[in-house]
Amino acid sequence: MSREIFHALHHGDEPLLLPNAWDHASGAALAAAGFAAVGTTSLGVAAAHGLPDGVARTRDQTLALAELLGDLPCPVTVDIEAGFNEDPAEVAAFAEQIAARGAAGLNIEDGRGSELADPGHQSELIAAITERVPSLFVNARVDTYWLGVDMSTPSPTLARAERYVAAGAHGVFVPGVRAGVEISALVAGIDAPLNVLHLPGGKSVAELGELGVRRISTGSLLFRRAVQAAVRAAEAIRDGGSLPDGIPGYDEIQRLANDGGRN
Amino acid sequence: MSREIFHALHHGDEPLLLPNAWDHASGAALAAAGFAAVGTTSLGVAAAHGLPDGVARTRDQTLALAELLGDLPCPVTVDIEAGFNEDPAEVAAFAEQIAARGAAGLNIEDGRGSELADPGHQSELIAAITERVPSLFVNARVDTYWLGVDMSTPSPTLARAERYVAAGAHGVFVPGVRAGVEISALVAGIDAPLNVLHLPGGKSVAELGELGVRRISTGSLLFRRAVQAAVRAAEAIRDGGSLPDGIPGYDEIQRLANDGGRN
Repeated sequence: MSREIFHALHHGDEPLLLPNAWDHASGAALAAAGFAAVGTTSLGVAAAHGLPDGVARTRDQTLALAELLGDLPCPVTVDIEAGFNEDPAEVAAFAEQIAARGAAGLNIEDGRGSELADPGHQSELIAAITERVPSLFVNARVDTYWLGVDMSTPSPTLARAERYVAAGAHGVFVPGVRAGVEISALVAGIDAPLNVLHLPGGKSVAELGELGVRRISTGSLLFRRAVQAAVRAAEAIRDGGSLPDGIPGYDEIQRLANDGGRN
Repeated sequence: MSREIFHALHHGDEPLLLPNAWDHASGAALAAAGFAAVGTTSLGVAAAHGLPDGVARTRDQTLALAELLGDLPCPVTVDIEAGFNEDPAEVAAFAEQIAARGAAGLNIEDGRGSELADPGHQSELIAAITERVPSLFVNARVDTYWLGVDMSTPSPTLARAERYVAAGAHGVFVPGVRAGVEISALVAGIDAPLNVLHLPGGKSVAELGELGVRRISTGSLLFRRAVQAAVRAAEAIRDGGSLPDGIPGYDEIQRLANDGGRN
């Protein structure tokens, strides 16, 4: 049921704004604030555990987070970096484990460090997942813009997206694209809902929606903001400054653990 | 060496302002910001894992956090709630595990749910720890004010503190005390550095220092502020609002995982 809702959220009147959590409290608080679905941030998951992001080091932590977020009252989609393995059967088995913990979807990226995976191989990973867990919303991330590789025009991005959609991907995520004309070209050229990353100083949710974007992720931004806010609060206490109003109380945070943000 | 530094921080010119972390990133970011030592927040550790605080459910997560924070470039003290066990030998063994992961100190509380432990029994837990790991700074938390129990005057608090110090505690933590006259009475009556909790709207670090407080904890406040800031950032993106300047970038957060906040 959660998966049907999550698929439908990519085809509503408004684009899906997907905030990204890194632990149970952040996920439950976002659900309690009324967001329709919650994603995860691989940077947040990695950094919370003192590990580097994007180098296949956080498989266990990602699975543990999927388990923790399984009790949220909204669909959850999990970032699995590049799948933590190059063997399609292993990646499919991992996707099945994520799904068994309640996830409605996952992100899988074609970046490998500072390079891009061979798109044929990446398509095999995607096909293995969609065959094993057909109900899971598979969001195929194309890292051309993110890595600044092979992006002279949208066409290499489109070529990758086409192969991933042919392999069964339900959506395509192109983080890093900023120019309206390029976003429009991606919307026009990809036969699946387009997901972009919110960029500070970039287009608003409404503007991206007008361009045809169907899903907008916050990536690691909320995690990075949370770290900043914690440090600034400590500095304010040290320096005799003030803290903002409305900080949730002890009982409110305890309740998130209890009810997963059901209010 | 880290333990000697941590002991000495309770006897400096200024009180020790101890910010409380809940994962590696928050701890490393606080260390990078120049705080001399970092504590942990049991509420944050529990809520991050979708578990309730204060009911001995987070033993494994607390040990895992001690391990993660073991690479910070400053002393770390770990909140172990009430020790996760009532058997002094078990609590001492846990303290030894925490210490083996690099902790310079720990907090152990005499609250048990909404009640207080028998002070004789609590003293046995403390004595078991200080005998097993003499170099660890043991901060004995007295929960009279925190729970609003047995606090008509400072004397029940003082009686508990005296027993815990006699059992080897190196410091006494009385969260929840607010009035200057009561803080002064605790400073005067306890033969160990007094730790209080920073209370929003309460006395500043400087004012607490003038009263003789030696250590000021932020408790769960930074964690709660971080959750608030993450949700507010998501809401600002949704509503077309703006985010604050200076949010750390992706590379800056990756660096925290790498160097533990060494700058």
